[in-house]
Amino acid sequence: MEKKSLEQLLQQVSDGTISPEKALLAIREQPFEDLGFAKVDLHRQVRQGAGEVIYGAGKTPEQIAGITASLRQHGQDHVLITRLSKEQHEVLKDLMEYDYYPEARIAIAGGMPEKKNAGTICVCTGGTSDIPVAEEAALTAEFLGNEVVRCYDVGVAGLHRLMSHMDQVMSARVIIAVAGMEGALASVVGGLADCPVIAVPTSVGYGASFGGISALLSMLNSCASGVSVVNIDNGFGAGYQASMINRDR
Amino acid sequence: MEKKSLEQLLQQVSDGTISPEKALLAIREQPFEDLGFAKVDLHRQVRQGAGEVIYGAGKTPEQIAGITASLRQHGQDHVLITRLSKEQHEVLKDLMEYDYYPEARIAIAGGMPEKKNAGTICVCTGGTSDIPVAEEAALTAEFLGNEVVRCYDVGVAGLHRLMSHMDQVMSARVIIAVAGMEGALASVVGGLADCPVIAVPTSVGYGASFGGISALLSMLNSCASGVSVVNIDNGFGAGYQASMINRDR
Amino acid sequence: MEKKSLEQLLQQVSDGTISPEKALLAIREQPFEDLGFAKVDLHRQVRQGAGEVIYGAGKTPEQIAGITASLRQHGQDHVLITRLSKEQHEVLKDLMEYDYYPEARIAIAGGMPEKKNAGTICVCTGGTSDIPVAEEAALTAEFLGNEVVRCYDVGVAGLHRLMSHMDQVMSARVIIAVAGMEGALASVVGGLADCPVIAVPTSVGYGASFGGISALLSMLNSCASGVSVVNIDNGFGAGYQASMINRDR
Amino acid sequence: MEKKSLEQLLQQVSDGTISPEKALLAIREQPFEDLGFAKVDLHRQVRQGAGEVIYGAGKTPEQIAGITASLRQHGQDHVLITRLSKEQHEVLKDLMEYDYYPEARIAIAGGMPEKKNAGTICVCTGGTSDIPVAEEAALTAEFLGNEVVRCYDVGVAGLHRLMSHMDQVMSARVIIAVAGMEGALASVVGGLADCPVIAVPTSVGYGASFGGISALLSMLNSCASGVSVVNIDNGFGAGYQASMINRDR
Amino acid sequence: MEKKSLEQLLQQVSDGTISPEKALLAIREQPFEDLGFAKVDLHRQVRQGAGEVIYGAGKTPEQIAGITASLRQHGQDHVLITRLSKEQHEVLKDLMEYDYYPEARIAIAGGMPEKKNAGTICVCTGGTSDIPVAEEAALTAEFLGNEVVRCYDVGVAGLHRLMSHMDQVMSARVIIAVAGMEGALASVVGGLADCPVIAVPTSVGYGASFGGISALLSMLNSCASGVSVVNIDNGFGAGYQASMINRDR
Amino acid sequence: MEKKSLEQLLQQVSDGTISPEKALLAIREQPFEDLGFAKVDLHRQVRQGAGEVIYGAGKTPEQIAGITASLRQHGQDHVLITRLSKEQHEVLKDLMEYDYYPEARIAIAGGMPEKKNAGTICVCTGGTSDIPVAEEAALTAEFLGNEVVRCYDVGVAGLHRLMSHMDQVMSARVIIAVAGMEGALASVVGGLADCPVIAVPTSVGYGASFGGISALLSMLNSCASGVSVVNIDNGFGAGYQASMINRDR
Amino acid sequence: MEKKSLEQLLQQVSDGTISPEKALLAIREQPFEDLGFAKVDLHRQVRQGAGEVIYGAGKTPEQIAGITASLRQHGQDHVLITRLSKEQHEVLKDLMEYDYYPEARIAIAGGMPEKKNAGTICVCTGGTSDIPVAEEAALTAEFLGNEVVRCYDVGVAGLHRLMSHMDQVMSARVIIAVAGMEGALASVVGGLADCPVIAVPTSVGYGASFGGISALLSMLNSCASGVSVVNIDNGFGAGYQASMINRDR
Amino acid sequence: MEKKSLEQLLQQVSDGTISPEKALLAIREQPFEDLGFAKVDLHRQVRQGAGEVIYGAGKTPEQIAGITASLRQHGQDHVLITRLSKEQHEVLKDLMEYDYYPEARIAIAGGMPEKKNAGTICVCTGGTSDIPVAEEAALTAEFLGNEVVRCYDVGVAGLHRLMSHMDQVMSARVIIAVAGMEGALASVVGGLADCPVIAVPTSVGYGASFGGISALLSMLNSCASGVSVVNIDNGFGAGYQASMINRDR
Repeated sequence: MEKKSLEQLLQQVSDGTISPEKALLAIREQPFEDLGFAKVDLHRQVRQGAGEVIYGAGKTPEQIAGITASLRQHGQDHVLITRLSKEQHEVLKDLMEYDYYPEARIAIAGGMPEKKNAGTICVCTGGTSDIPVAEEAALTAEFLGNEVVRCYDVGVAGLHRLMSHMDQVMSARVIIAVAGMEGALASVVGGLADCPVIAVPTSVGYGASFGGISALLSMLNSCASGVSVVNIDNGFGAGYQASMINRDR
Repeated sequence: MEKKSLEQLLQQVSDGTISPEKALLAIREQPFEDLGFAKVDLHRQVRQGAGEVIYGAGKTPEQIAGITASLRQHGQDHVLITRLSKEQHEVLKDLMEYDYYPEARIAIAGGMPEKKNAGTICVCTGGTSDIPVAEEAALTAEFLGNEVVRCYDVGVAGLHRLMSHMDQVMSARVIIAVAGMEGALASVVGGLADCPVIAVPTSVGYGASFGGISALLSMLNSCASGVSVVNIDNGFGAGYQASMINRDR
Repeated sequence: MEKKSLEQLLQQVSDGTISPEKALLAIREQPFEDLGFAKVDLHRQVRQGAGEVIYGAGKTPEQIAGITASLRQHGQDHVLITRLSKEQHEVLKDLMEYDYYPEARIAIAGGMPEKKNAGTICVCTGGTSDIPVAEEAALTAEFLGNEVVRCYDVGVAGLHRLMSHMDQVMSARVIIAVAGMEGALASVVGGLADCPVIAVPTSVGYGASFGGISALLSMLNSCASGVSVVNIDNGFGAGYQASMINRDR
Repeated sequence: MEKKSLEQLLQQVSDGTISPEKALLAIREQPFEDLGFAKVDLHRQVRQGAGEVIYGAGKTPEQIAGITASLRQHGQDHVLITRLSKEQHEVLKDLMEYDYYPEARIAIAGGMPEKKNAGTICVCTGGTSDIPVAEEAALTAEFLGNEVVRCYDVGVAGLHRLMSHMDQVMSARVIIAVAGMEGALASVVGGLADCPVIAVPTSVGYGASFGGISALLSMLNSCASGVSVVNIDNGFGAGYQASMINRDR
Repeated sequence: MEKKSLEQLLQQVSDGTISPEKALLAIREQPFEDLGFAKVDLHRQVRQGAGEVIYGAGKTPEQIAGITASLRQHGQDHVLITRLSKEQHEVLKDLMEYDYYPEARIAIAGGMPEKKNAGTICVCTGGTSDIPVAEEAALTAEFLGNEVVRCYDVGVAGLHRLMSHMDQVMSARVIIAVAGMEGALASVVGGLADCPVIAVPTSVGYGASFGGISALLSMLNSCASGVSVVNIDNGFGAGYQASMINRDR
Repeated sequence: MEKKSLEQLLQQVSDGTISPEKALLAIREQPFEDLGFAKVDLHRQVRQGAGEVIYGAGKTPEQIAGITASLRQHGQDHVLITRLSKEQHEVLKDLMEYDYYPEARIAIAGGMPEKKNAGTICVCTGGTSDIPVAEEAALTAEFLGNEVVRCYDVGVAGLHRLMSHMDQVMSARVIIAVAGMEGALASVVGGLADCPVIAVPTSVGYGASFGGISALLSMLNSCASGVSVVNIDNGFGAGYQASMINRDR
Repeated sequence: MEKKSLEQLLQQVSDGTISPEKALLAIREQPFEDLGFAKVDLHRQVRQGAGEVIYGAGKTPEQIAGITASLRQHGQDHVLITRLSKEQHEVLKDLMEYDYYPEARIAIAGGMPEKKNAGTICVCTGGTSDIPVAEEAALTAEFLGNEVVRCYDVGVAGLHRLMSHMDQVMSARVIIAVAGMEGALASVVGGLADCPVIAVPTSVGYGASFGGISALLSMLNSCASGVSVVNIDNGFGAGYQASMINRDR
Repeated sequence: MEKKSLEQLLQQVSDGTISPEKALLAIREQPFEDLGFAKVDLHRQVRQGAGEVIYGAGKTPEQIAGITASLRQHGQDHVLITRLSKEQHEVLKDLMEYDYYPEARIAIAGGMPEKKNAGTICVCTGGTSDIPVAEEAALTAEFLGNEVVRCYDVGVAGLHRLMSHMDQVMSARVIIAVAGMEGALASVVGGLADCPVIAVPTSVGYGASFGGISALLSMLNSCASGVSVVNIDNGFGAGYQASMINRDR
């Protein structure tokens, strides 16, 4: 509860327009619905400027449908569901309506919201295998109202491929650099661009890539300034933060 | 070399106003000065919107003075030097003029530049021992033209301390969360704020903190959306990216 | 063999009421039954105040049934079996009678014992996916005679959810904090509560959560005093120790 | 702020015995003193039943003296300072009065408080080198009002040494098992005792002990039920939690 | 674009034999074909002396067939496909023609090119289980025009087996040492041979071999000079670099 | 080739009873048969006092049958095959005759050899789940001619179980201590026994046991003298070395 | 207390030749002297066939002198002190008499005991830098009554050096292989010898040797049978176990 | 001993021109001098085409002088000493003559040998701090008779710096890429060059660079073909292998 509304509430109690009991209730009212297995956050759109997102992994289709229904009943028109496996989708599709993006394992109920932010977000990948994570980032950013430009398979082993996309890279408001293996893409992009770069290590690779650790460390140690990193394969987190950066204030 | 100037150059060759030899020279001209031990980047301000920064660790005071001189000769008025130890400072202070901030191990030659970005950057720390890293972030952000608000020692073991700074947290354009040990500050701040959070793990702690790994992993796995992470103790990187995010477009 | 009974036994030898041979036998008598594949501990209830528990993982249903029978023949009415997979359950259910709790993978033969300890144990989780581990803890504590309060899905990314359960948190004799990912729940709860907190890291998460290492390190480095930690996913261990703490002396 | 006092406060506003402005102030009043470099927690004794403790590592003697003075001014008579190195002590001893325990690196200002809890806490170590960590635990527990029994150098390589202390081990309310190297002490004690065991891995050892990781992992994987673990060398944390467990309710 | 052709191009612009627009186009022309999911490198044979290789892992059979077709249309007669699983092969074999080597998981379209380099490459393995990785190296080297000698199962636990192949070891231009477990083969071979040794750790082993880390570290720490290392199981990389070394200049 | 036979050979050359060519051949003759996929060691019984053993993992049943046949043709009557999975066994049993021990995954062709060493080898396990590894050790030792005593499920969480086997522990010539989880068994046994202890960490456990790393580190750091360690789950290695120690000289 | 003496004691109680109180005392009598900071094991020579050894690291010279005096008063003529740094030695040499071996950091009070075991122990090192650890092993073995042969600097990068010592290697009863870096010596020696090999990884190396981890893993994964491993730099442990193996039974 | 000389020797025995005893001696003669602390390899120049190199770390100046003298007496004119610290140099310079290169910590006795190989070796570094390791590589390569081109401070954060050296990169026979932090230089160079690239990770960096692990993993996972890796900071190994590759055959 913000300072301002607290002041008003106390003034109302003082004025007698609201009873102490009701004020107490208002102060302590739960900004979430308790479904037993989950406490659905209903104030998030107010608090953080973006609706509640459902992380699908480890939830049953029934739980996902329940949370979605609760959110929509309380006024959130569009719901983003991430990490929804094909197995979950096969069951969920009979429980509710939504669009499913299999490569990104993303579902969107209520349709894609309108674009509302001015700048563009550029999503690059080092290789073809990084595309699923990149799509998770790109769709998340689009869901949150951003225009997204995709530059896939522009890894550093063939620099000319990246160079041919320099216009897109140079005009973005934020860049998301998605790469596995040695993750050098983040440093190269970070050295060229003049906007924030969010690096997403992927678990693509084998042997000493250790499921993404190699790319993660590489990105954390980037010699380019202006690069920050999210968890391995966390396309959603990158898309979400990119949208926050791109948001008009 | 950008597409536009290349077009102009080729047009000039076609017009005969410039010889092919000179055009070749222009295309290949080095945008850096080679000092032997270092290649000083002179176009960075143009390319990335912020002047070259000198990473002091592992450089001799003489090298630092030389690079600073080269930068200032080529028109960069203010120079930021990071990771300048007290030992280096004792020698460097006789070679050139600058302001030294011992806690942050930062030197600024040419004075602090003027504020140019509109929003504020809020720098929080979990404890007292995290302050040196936080100051590196804060001074970097100030050097790059931002207003910085400091909220130190607001770690999660006493939540009321953080709560009493909610106004500052809620009104920032970017938050830098600096914490060692379990690094939970980033998640708590990330859950409350509606702006991007850059998390900086610090090497504060002992035993199973493993020199900052515990905080690093904690921050990478943050359950709050909108959090990204930089290297352990990398206050500079956080301040630099925060400034990029805060920059008006 | 305790000091006291040893004194009595020697006195009996001295009195001639027992022969040296029999005394030797008594001293060396095995307080367990040797089933070949296992040595069933029959004195544990005497020695540690709680009956022998069967760790189901890696045992055949036949072995589990055999150990249970041995315990019940020697006077242990209620038997707790942990980590009993659904596959084992499908076979075991035809060999003996018990109640099965599939989410917690726990079986209880002989029915749930009566409540015997005065205080309450509060079991919290950071998210929905941590519930199976939490249930292992909660059922273990209930089996050992404790009243358990469950506060699930109260992770730090939405602090208001935890705040709305403060009464339960503040009135517990012990709190078990179950969380994966960054495991910050333990620190936040530990900073608020005035009772011991047993933290259980879970393997929930992906990428740099490294199967629970991130949460484990986070909890070990908690800046809150009064927090100790058990193995990743070890709900049983947390429930067992919580019961020991809650026991009246 | 607890529910009860909030109710009272709102009633007072309604009654007109307090103005809305003052109520707002009371609700938001900081329960800590902001010294700039630290926010001293003044409500901790109320909130958690034990006064604020000063973690000395990384603080200057002047900061420590300042925090101590602030605490004592606000009514905390006894102050515990941990991790106070001999170097810090050499300076601090001229700034304020306290008793210094060099082996445990602990300082106590205002004298040792009286014993207030009924049970005893037994502190065991595997070897001689583990004693400093054990003393940190023991002095912390004594500071918090507990009777402590010390059983040092009873490691598992000579089981008879532990066996000769079985009376003390069996009669404790809590046991703190401090061990480096392979850390087996925790499992052996945990298998014998019928009370909670808090295991403290120490950084004693060399080679593959990896600064305490070996003991830490060993203790986390203890096959004995009723064992939980704190950070490497965290004697304070163990002593603090042991006191919480021993506290009369 | 190389310096020389740039000079010529600029001269042509100056001569008027080419328009500035066409020159610009030539300078920026993409040396790759963009298939959407991949950017096929068409200049690699020019730039690096070896055609583009397709890394099969994580690509659909359709994507592989598409890239192969694109390469062959642009004049690359022979195409090497690595990491082609049997599952992918079952589908791919109906889409295009090629020879499949199941043990090495390699496919070659357009037939094996002719031998063109003078020296021989000797591929050794420590055991039988390392042969698949060794075959990936050997076939890659053969594809790139080299003569390959195979010495399999000559690990250090039976030195006489290696000794009986000394002639082959001593006469090679490059040696590829493939070994799992403790990876000692690289050091022993490196100590005997007078040519470069490329060591390939394999994931063969169990327990503390940690999926090849043991062999990797062993090889990186080789006390023999002249040994370098590639990623775990990276037979292709070893064969490729060996060919580069063996190439006549 | 040993010094002695070399002397004889040279004497024969000098005497003219053997030609230089034949001598050269004799010196360089291969003491193994090359089957292409494997070089079967035929002199091992001479060189190391024990016949060649076949490590079954990663070999096809046909390869195993081929190597066995080669060994038996060259005079090795009994052949031990380790790590023979049930899947391999299903095929191999139609290719050759042998006894199969499924729990230990061991096959013995030619029957179990006679006992030839005087002392006994005691194999202990911490729990029931460690038995497969222990059986691999025990059968290996029996195959090599030793008498083996088994003490299973005597882990340190119930010390009385181990104590009741003290006679066997005290009278062994070598002890093999097999344990997962925290691996404390090795230290406790090592502190009691007066003979060498070979510790075998097992991958039994979960969470922070990290597939046996916890037990491995614990055993390497054993505070008991006289303990050495083999690889995780390496029952064969322990049985083999135990036999070497037990061998009469 | 052994079974036999317990029988006798009980018989004496039955006979009345000893009172129950005295019997109790005898059973529970401490086989160690409690010096406060240490519990000196006085029965070890009886129990394990070798006297108590003092691990010097982390003990004050005064503590070491006190333990030595206690041991010698109770009849242990020769005392071995390991890990005695030069700094400790400078103080200790004024407190008691002993011979100091600086390279091995070993002190022996009471002179070197006589040789009592028949076989020889061969100690090999990979390089010159491994000699201190090797000397710790060699002196320990000599102290325990064994003849030791030293083969230093015979690492695998120059196999001919090891080959020239084959006679010594082949005639030993036990071999101790001491090596850092890639630790391949253990495998090569293990493949040649027909006796047990105890491998000692050393912390010699840099970079990816990680303080001995590389050698440790290499030795644990040795493809040679008959190799076991002790902790990094644990020369004492290897010498102690080697002596146990060499002991006549 | 090579096959050829063995044939000749046997022929001589057969001819009677040499006695069997002398032949035995010749066969077994040590190709090294045993200095007690080291076995100096005198045949290395014959065997591997390059003289013995002295690794200075962990050797006393007296030992280094002794080995150097031994080598020069046996005909090796030029001796390379690596890892010679300034402290060792201060003593060694009074014991023998040599040139000292402090940055690279290299000493060369007998002067720099003449250039003998045709191609050039290009040594690149990512930053200024990587120069010491690069100089170790460059001087080693020069000592072994190669022409070396240095391209320092051309890291990927400012790609134009590397681009301006493309001529040198493209014309080298081998490239050594030396970089710390994220080590991306190796991939970028590897993608551009058509010759083998030896990557040297350095320990330059802080935090999550983990003393070079980040760069090491990055280089092992390079997406560019033709890249192999040596140990962290192992400039010598890279220079040595580069020379082997550059050697005319």
